[in-house]
Amino acid sequence: MKTMKLSELSLYLEQRGFPNTIDGNQELEIVGVNTLHEAKVGEISFLANIKYREQLLDTKASAVIVNLDDSKPETLTVIRCADPYGALAATVIGIHGVRKHPQWGIDARTQIASTAQIGTNANIGPFVTIDEQVVIGDNVILYPGCYIGYGAVLGDNVTLYPNVVVYDGSRIGDQVSLHAGTVIGQDGLGYASVEGRWMKIPQAGWAVVENDVDMGANCAIDRATLGETRVGEGSKFSDAVVIGHGTKVGKHNMYVAQVGLAGSVNVGDHVTMGGQVGVAGHLTIGDNVTIGAKTGIWGDLEANERYFGIPAFKWKQFWRQVAAMKEMPDALKKLRKLEKELETLKAQLQNHD
Amino acid sequence: MKTMKLSELSLYLEQRGFPNTIDGNQELEIVGVNTLHEAKVGEISFLANIKYREQLLDTKASAVIVNLDDSKPETLTVIRCADPYGALAATVIGIHGVRKHPQWGIDARTQIASTAQIGTNANIGPFVTIDEQVVIGDNVILYPGCYIGYGAVLGDNVTLYPNVVVYDGSRIGDQVSLHAGTVIGQDGLGYASVEGRWMKIPQAGWAVVENDVDMGANCAIDRATLGETRVGEGSKFSDAVVIGHGTKVGKHNMYVAQVGLAGSVNVGDHVTMGGQVGVAGHLTIGDNVTIGAKTGIWGDLEANERYFGIPAFKWKQFWRQVAAMKEMPDALKKLRKLEKELETLKAQLQNHD
Amino acid sequence: MKTMKLSELSLYLEQRGFPNTIDGNQELEIVGVNTLHEAKVGEISFLANIKYREQLLDTKASAVIVNLDDSKPETLTVIRCADPYGALAATVIGIHGVRKHPQWGIDARTQIASTAQIGTNANIGPFVTIDEQVVIGDNVILYPGCYIGYGAVLGDNVTLYPNVVVYDGSRIGDQVSLHAGTVIGQDGLGYASVEGRWMKIPQAGWAVVENDVDMGANCAIDRATLGETRVGEGSKFSDAVVIGHGTKVGKHNMYVAQVGLAGSVNVGDHVTMGGQVGVAGHLTIGDNVTIGAKTGIWGDLEANERYFGIPAFKWKQFWRQVAAMKEMPDALKKLRKLEKELETLKAQLQNHD
Repeated sequence: MKTMKLSELSLYLEQRGFPNTIDGNQELEIVGVNTLHEAKVGEISFLANIKYREQLLDTKASAVIVNLDDSKPETLTVIRCADPYGALAATVIGIHGVRKHPQWGIDARTQIASTAQIGTNANIGPFVTIDEQVVIGDNVILYPGCYIGYGAVLGDNVTLYPNVVVYDGSRIGDQVSLHAGTVIGQDGLGYASVEGRWMKIPQAGWAVVENDVDMGANCAIDRATLGETRVGEGSKFSDAVVIGHGTKVGKHNMYVAQVGLAGSVNVGDHVTMGGQVGVAGHLTIGDNVTIGAKTGIWGDLEANERYFGIPAFKWKQFWRQVAAMKEMPDALKKLRKLEKELETLKAQLQNHD
Repeated sequence: MKTMKLSELSLYLEQRGFPNTIDGNQELEIVGVNTLHEAKVGEISFLANIKYREQLLDTKASAVIVNLDDSKPETLTVIRCADPYGALAATVIGIHGVRKHPQWGIDARTQIASTAQIGTNANIGPFVTIDEQVVIGDNVILYPGCYIGYGAVLGDNVTLYPNVVVYDGSRIGDQVSLHAGTVIGQDGLGYASVEGRWMKIPQAGWAVVENDVDMGANCAIDRATLGETRVGEGSKFSDAVVIGHGTKVGKHNMYVAQVGLAGSVNVGDHVTMGGQVGVAGHLTIGDNVTIGAKTGIWGDLEANERYFGIPAFKWKQFWRQVAAMKEMPDALKKLRKLEKELETLKAQLQNHD
Repeated sequence: MKTMKLSELSLYLEQRGFPNTIDGNQELEIVGVNTLHEAKVGEISFLANIKYREQLLDTKASAVIVNLDDSKPETLTVIRCADPYGALAATVIGIHGVRKHPQWGIDARTQIASTAQIGTNANIGPFVTIDEQVVIGDNVILYPGCYIGYGAVLGDNVTLYPNVVVYDGSRIGDQVSLHAGTVIGQDGLGYASVEGRWMKIPQAGWAVVENDVDMGANCAIDRATLGETRVGEGSKFSDAVVIGHGTKVGKHNMYVAQVGLAGSVNVGDHVTMGGQVGVAGHLTIGDNVTIGAKTGIWGDLEANERYFGIPAFKWKQFWRQVAAMKEMPDALKKLRKLEKELETLKAQLQNHD
């Protein structure tokens, strides 16, 4: 962590491809980066989303990175930039730095099979096991306790944090980052019921993790029964996400923690799932779908829609259901009252006759 | 992976106890096994379930394994067999093979305590730790990074994939297979509230995993506070399943990923739970119960029933609730309309008097 | 495990600070400790909660530890004590003992960086990796396969079970116990959407686990984007609990398995969450809140309340909703009947005119 004057930061950003202008006090000393809500004096923040614009009024941040045409409170110093997100990430790196990985070279206590191929500039910690016929690209970082099974392939610039397990035959793309305890390519739940016992169907497929995928800790991605399970390019998972055998996750998906997809699901591109979402097997989910946290999916989902609830409804309909649900106890009382009144009316009407 | 002529495959199946007849082209070259839906030309498939019978019309599979009396489209080649499931598994093994485990013997970098007993034909990778008084059967495969605690017992033909942890005193039966990162016998959540702090109640029990149990990756089976936690013979778990302390899972259960059972639950035999099901503590679940995905169980469940929902209803009732729920917003409108009409009627009636 | 006469046990408890009196047969031979419901003859139990008082009538336990003023069935032997919980834990230790950790000293196969500092009486198993600038207190037990990242700090009396991972910069307090496979301080899900791709925001914060925290197996606690993620003093988690980046868990919280909190949540003290509860990001939860299993939280929660359901309601309201839901299908029938009757009445009334 280091401090920078705002004028220094402006120059630093420009040099990294983020031209910008300071609107306010160039002399501010920046000591950290934080959210609008959590920032303290001396910290720089960013306007991530127009819905947070009101936080500009209340933030304690000393400066804020904003878009070229964002309005600002008079007393606030801002850095204007065409790409505030890119500038934010660069600022975080400039002020806070990035994780410094230990430098192991290839530790002598790593078990590397004689037929394994490893690219240049490998950084492999102790107590790692690399099996026969494994192929590993350049600039790979394998933390202690990782296991790479027979014939698995890892691309360039892959980082596996401690105790990650990659089963035999799995294929991991470039720039993939898997956090501790994540497992790729274990057998899926493939059993047939034979006279009251579960008979295992050998899981002869494999798992593919495409380029630029990140996963959190303790995720588990099944291999396919036959063919492949696939996590598409650029998709990002939080912790404890589980993907069933034969499922295909599209590109640039974003899954919050504890999401679970059963087997043989086909998910489109740019799909977002909140925490603890569950998707039943053999379904198709269109592109650009957003699924609210804890939602349970038992049917195919149309592209470009938002879904929510158990079972899932489209977003507006879900909240109508919830509103109706809240009215229910009172509505039932009214219903009973109506029944009585109707009886009274009927009696009255009979007396008239 | 190897290819076989259909006539060769037929013979291969017969030799393994699956007598069969080919109805169609014996000369087909089979290069893989796949589902009816996903099969390509050159692949063989299987009719798993009569509900998929229509897929026989559309499949691109070159041949399909079917039951003795299944009808078939005229142009499709089938193998008829009294046990299509058994034949399927044998076919997968014949064409795709089974996982070839690395051959470590007993790796020199394994830590084996002097009082541990290990059966014949052990295959134990590097960086494994086996504690004092452990007893391990024959033909056991322990992948790198496994830990076997004090006094634990493992049966014959057990396979523990990388980084599996078996705590002290746990008992693992024969033919058990635990995938990477699964943990058996950690302490359960046993605390008493004493003056606003949680005081630990020592977890003095243990965990038992009976014969023929399989678990996916990153499962966690608590030891009991007192006595045992038990996973019954032949039960199969997917990934990230969690079983609380003192719970008894019956025989031949099948749990999809992320199922969680609290403590002191008693589950019967042949129970199936969908993904993300949760069961509260101290409940009893009868034999042959099926529980739909994401269901929350807060009460005992009768044998031979299907349950679904949060809170859980019997299957039919659940779908009636969902249907009613969908009608609700409209019903509330109707109710308001009725109220008004009734008021009007009452007024009219008063005018009559 | 050893047996004790009840009179011996009484003395043993007194010596450990739990003065007590036996009301019944002092000569009973106690062979184990168990719950009221599960106890067998020869076992001692305890009255944990007045709601279980009726179980005193049915228990097969030979003796029960109760409060000073609890009434008892005439034929039951009890030990009266001002602190039955404390006496219970001491009894479990007396009869069943506590876990005996292996004694490794500092195993030669552990990788300890030259700048790491380790306190007195360390017990560190093989295949552990301790990175540069790590500071570890006294009496620490690190099981095989643990990884402690750059600059992490561990207090005194910490126990990390096999394959626990503590990322760089994490801070672990005194008397912390983390079960196998738990991960502290991995990157959270911090990405900004830039032209359809997810750009990583470096996670420059860290994770703090305060004194006296226990976690089960396979938990995952994100580091913060900026600043810290914090798990407060004395909090206890079961297995597979996931805490998002920047979230602050208060003191003496109790979370059952598979609970998931998103990022930037602020949880008060003495909060209890049932299994599989999910909490959305950026929320505030008051002190002494209790949340029922499987509940989904999308809004701030008032202190001292109980919540339940998806979405969450206060406890009583939730059960009113469930009751109303069960009435719904019948209510809809009644509504249709009322509509018809009203039509009939209107027609009748028109005929009158």
